Amino acid sequence: MTKKQKIAVLGAGSWGTGLALVLIENGHDVVIWGNHAEVVDELNTTHTNQHYLPDMTLSPKMRATLVLEEALEGAQMVVIAIPTSAMRIVCSQLNKALKEPTLLVHVSKGIEPDTNLRMTQVIEEEITPEKRSALVVLSGPSHAEEVVRHHPTTLCASSKDLKAAEIVQDAFLNNNLRIYTNEDVIGAEIGGALKNIIALGAGITDGLGYGDNAKAALMTRGMAEITRLGVTAGADPQTFYGLTGIGDLIVTCTSVHSRNWRAGNMLGKGESLERVLENMGMVVEGVRTAKAVHQWAQKLQIDMPITEAIYQVLFEKEDPKVAVDRLMGRDRKLEKEEY
Amino acid sequence: MTKKQKIAVLGAGSWGTGLALVLIENGHDVVIWGNHAEVVDELNTTHTNQHYLPDMTLSPKMRATLVLEEALEGAQMVVIAIPTSAMRIVCSQLNKALKEPTLLVHVSKGIEPDTNLRMTQVIEEEITPEKRSALVVLSGPSHAEEVVRHHPTTLCASSKDLKAAEIVQDAFLNNNLRIYTNEDVIGAEIGGALKNIIALGAGITDGLGYGDNAKAALMTRGMAEITRLGVTAGADPQTFYGLTGIGDLIVTCTSVHSRNWRAGNMLGKGESLERVLENMGMVVEGVRTAKAVHQWAQKLQIDMPITEAIYQVLFEKEDPKVAVDRLMGRDRKLEKEEY
Repeated sequence: MTKKQKIAVLGAGSWGTGLALVLIENGHDVVIWGNHAEVVDELNTTHTNQHYLPDMTLSPKMRATLVLEEALEGAQMVVIAIPTSAMRIVCSQLNKALKEPTLLVHVSKGIEPDTNLRMTQVIEEEITPEKRSALVVLSGPSHAEEVVRHHPTTLCASSKDLKAAEIVQDAFLNNNLRIYTNEDVIGAEIGGALKNIIALGAGITDGLGYGDNAKAALMTRGMAEITRLGVTAGADPQTFYGLTGIGDLIVTCTSVHSRNWRAGNMLGKGESLERVLENMGMVVEGVRTAKAVHQWAQKLQIDMPITEAIYQVLFEKEDPKVAVDRLMGRDRKLEKEEY
Repeated sequence: MTKKQKIAVLGAGSWGTGLALVLIENGHDVVIWGNHAEVVDELNTTHTNQHYLPDMTLSPKMRATLVLEEALEGAQMVVIAIPTSAMRIVCSQLNKALKEPTLLVHVSKGIEPDTNLRMTQVIEEEITPEKRSALVVLSGPSHAEEVVRHHPTTLCASSKDLKAAEIVQDAFLNNNLRIYTNEDVIGAEIGGALKNIIALGAGITDGLGYGDNAKAALMTRGMAEITRLGVTAGADPQTFYGLTGIGDLIVTCTSVHSRNWRAGNMLGKGESLERVLENMGMVVEGVRTAKAVHQWAQKLQIDMPITEAIYQVLFEKEDPKVAVDRLMGRDRKLEKEEY
């Protein structure tokens, strides 16, 4: 068992809260930073988070604050668990608030539209090197609800600095949570982000009433095109077939907990994107990522037929059935690719 | 559209019947060979197969026979769709009955216990080279029920002879069934066979009441150890992340249609293997394959902790919960492997 650390968790959504609980249960001293007064109050008083983790018991040691500096006080590790759309602004605040080089861990999955940057790249742009001792991505197949319930879960801590990844591994691992390490940050981030697009697609095929064969095909060929883009961007192809790639894709495409799948499912049943996003009440990262990857694939000239079809459904009012049927009708192909 | 061929389908189970229907709908002249008089009768008279495809309408052109020679009469292609335990004996009969070199396609997923041979190796031992013009494996994520219902499905035709794989591709493809080709027969067969072991494991974790995180972890790490063995046996690692590997694993682990998942689910809920096999009424290939791969991995000295845990549950009366919890507690590991 690792020694007790002081850790700040930025973000009081389901994943931030779930990871804070793991760290508390592992004996660390944790403060959550949130930006909604009611959620912060609730975490401090009843030690629950009804909006994001309804009907779940957390720990009486849950502590939260609205003041970033308070959460960072003495923190040896900062876990960033916020929507990707807030990453730049929060990191710019974090850069001002940090007093010394700190180990940063992020768990957010997305690609920034227009810049096509991964989240570690956004963090590196906003936080100066003197304020960060190392940067680690923690990712893998993990619904927060199940982690809170102590169901067996695996994650992967990825960093160019393997020693830092091992510190994160030590901080989070316990009998229910197994942590692997990996040095391929690019692969971990691209897999984690782009799988949300395929999850929207899986929801769409399920919403259309197609079966398990169609969904498995979409997931397999979807991961093949993610790998194609990832390798061009400098990733190790093997990473896409690990926990942060296919593992996370599986959990996101086959679970009712998944927001991206649920959003896709409503689209497949004929709802408009506007209505779907209104109904969700939480961030659907795949929608923003689909836009970013549509631009990115065009720029890199990578063939991503599934991503493109989902982009058309989301932003060009393409009929989902027409889009899926067009995918089935593509030319006869060899399966193997040369990387 | 390819020209009409005469094709024999050996096996009147769900997959043999489903593939025969595809070929008939594509305009080919098909005869099924079965070994149960009632099933053959039913296929010829009401054109249904209630035991294997309950409540499904097939084609009035369905034809079946109990006589192997009758099915083979003039056949340019033979599709072998039988349980792996019958492969040797049926191929020995087929060798006697074939009159000229014929294109053989097989769709059976398993490894022979004791010999540790893949199905094409068993076929090559039993059928002399003068009787086979080429040998193709047709595999991928495909529940027969969904293919019969014309739901979108993908398969991969694998052969050392790519021209032969393309002939098979042409025979089967249509608007609902997309066929890829691949030259890696070893990878296609090992992925297709060994995924049934992991599907038993996925059923076990679901039966234990563990969540989607645990199942995704088991599937991802399960495919990592299948790849480890496969590469040692001469396969291309990329094949395991295609339709015949992870694609087929996904469909088998996440669908109620799957026999292997259902059998595992009963085991996880505390039923004995004997009771489970009695209840199924169909072949559960994963059980036989687990025994074969347990021996094979020992012989090759490959570390396969998930397969080993499932073997212990199946054959050594290990408690499923103890086996799964032991897997979670293994040493901290790097995710990436060197092949």
